Amino acid sequence: MREFVTDHRQDLLDDLDAWLRIPGISAQPEHHGDVARSAEWFAEAARRTGFPTVEIWPTAGLPTVFAEWPSAEPDAPVVLVYGHHDVQPVDPLELWNTDPFDPTIDGDVLRARGASDDKGQLLFHLLGLRAHLAATGRDTPAVTLKLLIEGEEESGSPNFAGMLTERRARLDADIVVITDTGMVAPDVPSTVTGMRGLVVCTVTFHGPDMDLHSGVFGGAIPNPATAIARLAAALHDETGRVQVPGFYDDVLELTAEERDLFARVPVNDTEFLAVTHSRALAGESGFSTLERVGARPTAEVNGIGGGYQGSGGKTIVPSDAFVKLSFRLVANQDPRAITAAVEAFIAAHTPAGIEASVEWEGEGVAPCLVPLGTPAYEALTAAISEAFDGLPVLPTREGGSGPEAAIQTIIGAPLVFLGVGLPDDQIHAPNEKVTVSMLYKGAEAAGLLWGRVAALGRPGLRG
Amino acid sequence: MREFVTDHRQDLLDDLDAWLRIPGISAQPEHHGDVARSAEWFAEAARRTGFPTVEIWPTAGLPTVFAEWPSAEPDAPVVLVYGHHDVQPVDPLELWNTDPFDPTIDGDVLRARGASDDKGQLLFHLLGLRAHLAATGRDTPAVTLKLLIEGEEESGSPNFAGMLTERRARLDADIVVITDTGMVAPDVPSTVTGMRGLVVCTVTFHGPDMDLHSGVFGGAIPNPATAIARLAAALHDETGRVQVPGFYDDVLELTAEERDLFARVPVNDTEFLAVTHSRALAGESGFSTLERVGARPTAEVNGIGGGYQGSGGKTIVPSDAFVKLSFRLVANQDPRAITAAVEAFIAAHTPAGIEASVEWEGEGVAPCLVPLGTPAYEALTAAISEAFDGLPVLPTREGGSGPEAAIQTIIGAPLVFLGVGLPDDQIHAPNEKVTVSMLYKGAEAAGLLWGRVAALGRPGLRG
Repeated sequence: MREFVTDHRQDLLDDLDAWLRIPGISAQPEHHGDVARSAEWFAEAARRTGFPTVEIWPTAGLPTVFAEWPSAEPDAPVVLVYGHHDVQPVDPLELWNTDPFDPTIDGDVLRARGASDDKGQLLFHLLGLRAHLAATGRDTPAVTLKLLIEGEEESGSPNFAGMLTERRARLDADIVVITDTGMVAPDVPSTVTGMRGLVVCTVTFHGPDMDLHSGVFGGAIPNPATAIARLAAALHDETGRVQVPGFYDDVLELTAEERDLFARVPVNDTEFLAVTHSRALAGESGFSTLERVGARPTAEVNGIGGGYQGSGGKTIVPSDAFVKLSFRLVANQDPRAITAAVEAFIAAHTPAGIEASVEWEGEGVAPCLVPLGTPAYEALTAAISEAFDGLPVLPTREGGSGPEAAIQTIIGAPLVFLGVGLPDDQIHAPNEKVTVSMLYKGAEAAGLLWGRVAALGRPGLRG
Repeated sequence: MREFVTDHRQDLLDDLDAWLRIPGISAQPEHHGDVARSAEWFAEAARRTGFPTVEIWPTAGLPTVFAEWPSAEPDAPVVLVYGHHDVQPVDPLELWNTDPFDPTIDGDVLRARGASDDKGQLLFHLLGLRAHLAATGRDTPAVTLKLLIEGEEESGSPNFAGMLTERRARLDADIVVITDTGMVAPDVPSTVTGMRGLVVCTVTFHGPDMDLHSGVFGGAIPNPATAIARLAAALHDETGRVQVPGFYDDVLELTAEERDLFARVPVNDTEFLAVTHSRALAGESGFSTLERVGARPTAEVNGIGGGYQGSGGKTIVPSDAFVKLSFRLVANQDPRAITAAVEAFIAAHTPAGIEASVEWEGEGVAPCLVPLGTPAYEALTAAISEAFDGLPVLPTREGGSGPEAAIQTIIGAPLVFLGVGLPDDQIHAPNEKVTVSMLYKGAEAAGLLWGRVAALGRPGLRG
């Protein structure tokens, strides 16, 4: 497996160089043509790899690529690999040291927008599949392989759940492999075992129908900016615990084993401060930094505003103020229950004379959790460990939120995460890079995984 | 006195019509030529009234008009009348029902920008002085009269205190009459006996050096928007009392007599809500609305901001947040002491990992208080009462802040307030008006006041 991957490294690099030159930025309408070209490019690469069925699925937004390569084995497990071919915007362009769409290689580092998120990772799958075929001497994979490569992930996947539902029959699978995440360090292989859910809202407080002179009237009229500040301040107590009643009711607490595994992840707080350009840690008492960002729910003020915004002073009681809040959720919190709890909390913190309105962004995203120790999890971690020369594979959790929960719910198969990004990949930021040797490890792990999944068989996979 | 005023009403209206056509908006550089024309217009009107000395004093900004008419009486008291000839901007113009600089009269209401604030009130002084001369058969006033008519009051009087200091000798007076305020109602004559002081600042909290992904990092890094909200929320307790330590230390509490007089002012809360377009009252427990806005110090959030300001959501931990605060002060609070107390409060509410910076707008404005029962106060209220057919004159306080404290400090003479604006004059707002019959009362009161001040004599005035 390793020999094949090593011998064919240049194929991966050549493909990646070509694909990365297509600026498929889904958030920018002027690049939607590029997103379509990006889909075409990957479809062609899948065909070239040998997938007999390759389709481009239009959506109400941007196209998804679907590819399928049935195994010749009767009753081979069906694997669905998820990733995305669109990329983040590149602004601010002046902070890039190189052209984001002219990939450059410097030693083990390949720099370009999308190198790590997510094009590099999808291409390791194509190389891994070729390695799997070469190493096993097969004409078809040992598993039936389906690729589902979205084109709107960087724009919040607005059409994704609908498409999953609509095309459910074609997407049936026994295991889903998510390839859009990373590992702790090059010498610390790991796999994501959870992603946080999310609900997002804007709360507006309306006070007097116009800005008032704070001298003539100040001190006698409720100030919506003060009220919104009091609402935001009330979200946490002094220990960093969220004060929305019922917020923690459904939280599945970390097991002792999980906390122990978290504690082994060699991420230190100094590094965390450096990466976040921050001067102190904060958060819920009694939890480590990794637990806080991965395994604990949060309430965060994303924006606040109201009243005078210019330079100097303007002595008014403002008419309106707003706060933009997001709540990250963990298993088994339900976005609908949290939405209701937050609504009640806002109502309880709306003073007399203030009119509150709350706007939610969609229905929220459910959290997603991969249980440790299932056959699917064991197959994944064994494959990764083998690619990393026997190193143990640690479970981690991602603090962000993605379409994974929708996949888990709609497809109804066990989920695992095979991703080889690194914390310093600067995804979503200027100077995105990928560590090329990690892509080779990914190809090897993928190639190894299909044999292990096939060996488990369909009933074995489901545990 | 009344007969002369009644017979010469049209003179006041004609003058006012001419002066109001000059759009002397001091805040807008394109109108600075108009402010100069406005000064020239008033200087000419003062000359026409008989003032032998009329000068236009340039400042680093916009010009002040100074006029002086010495009494022929030896040792006549010297009166300094303060007002301003500049006006507020007129935006939003679309909310005006008539052209703001084309005065219209409808019954007892004259509508134009500056009609009440402050041109109408200055013109009642010219008519009142003529009435005083006619009624007493004198060639010179019974008091030496000085008029000091500023051109930058609506822009915060940036050059006023400097000019007072520089021209101190020319401005020497035994009593200062401020004419830039109002009364409770047409049938409730009143006089202002206090104005609040003011300190204004912008507090900025800096957290991470860039906006962070609130999924990847949220829950582990101090959020400056949350911190600024907690600072703003901490300004008041549940009873509306300001929580800055030491804030109330120097407050001169209202006497029982003052509270009794305040309680007699027939302003009701329903009207207050209508004027402020608000739905509820708020403020410091244990005080009436009038006490809250006039006689109690406040802390007010004038603006708050930070993080994402656009529509929808953006899941970040913002890098920065700010709050704009103003503190209204009452006698005997010292702006410098309050500034220091607020600085300490901010420092105490700056969490670890957050860098705070505070910018103050100038050195602040001291509060100003007119003691009840002094000879100057008694002369004023007697003159007003006579003009209002014997109605009692109630003391009130203004919540706003102006150059009065500087005048009181630098000139060092007792201050009284003779102003006939009404609460519904919409000064600083669209559709400013003045009630014309109030101007006639003002003229009568001014005419009566000079005789009473003269009768007290210089030593008598000083108490």
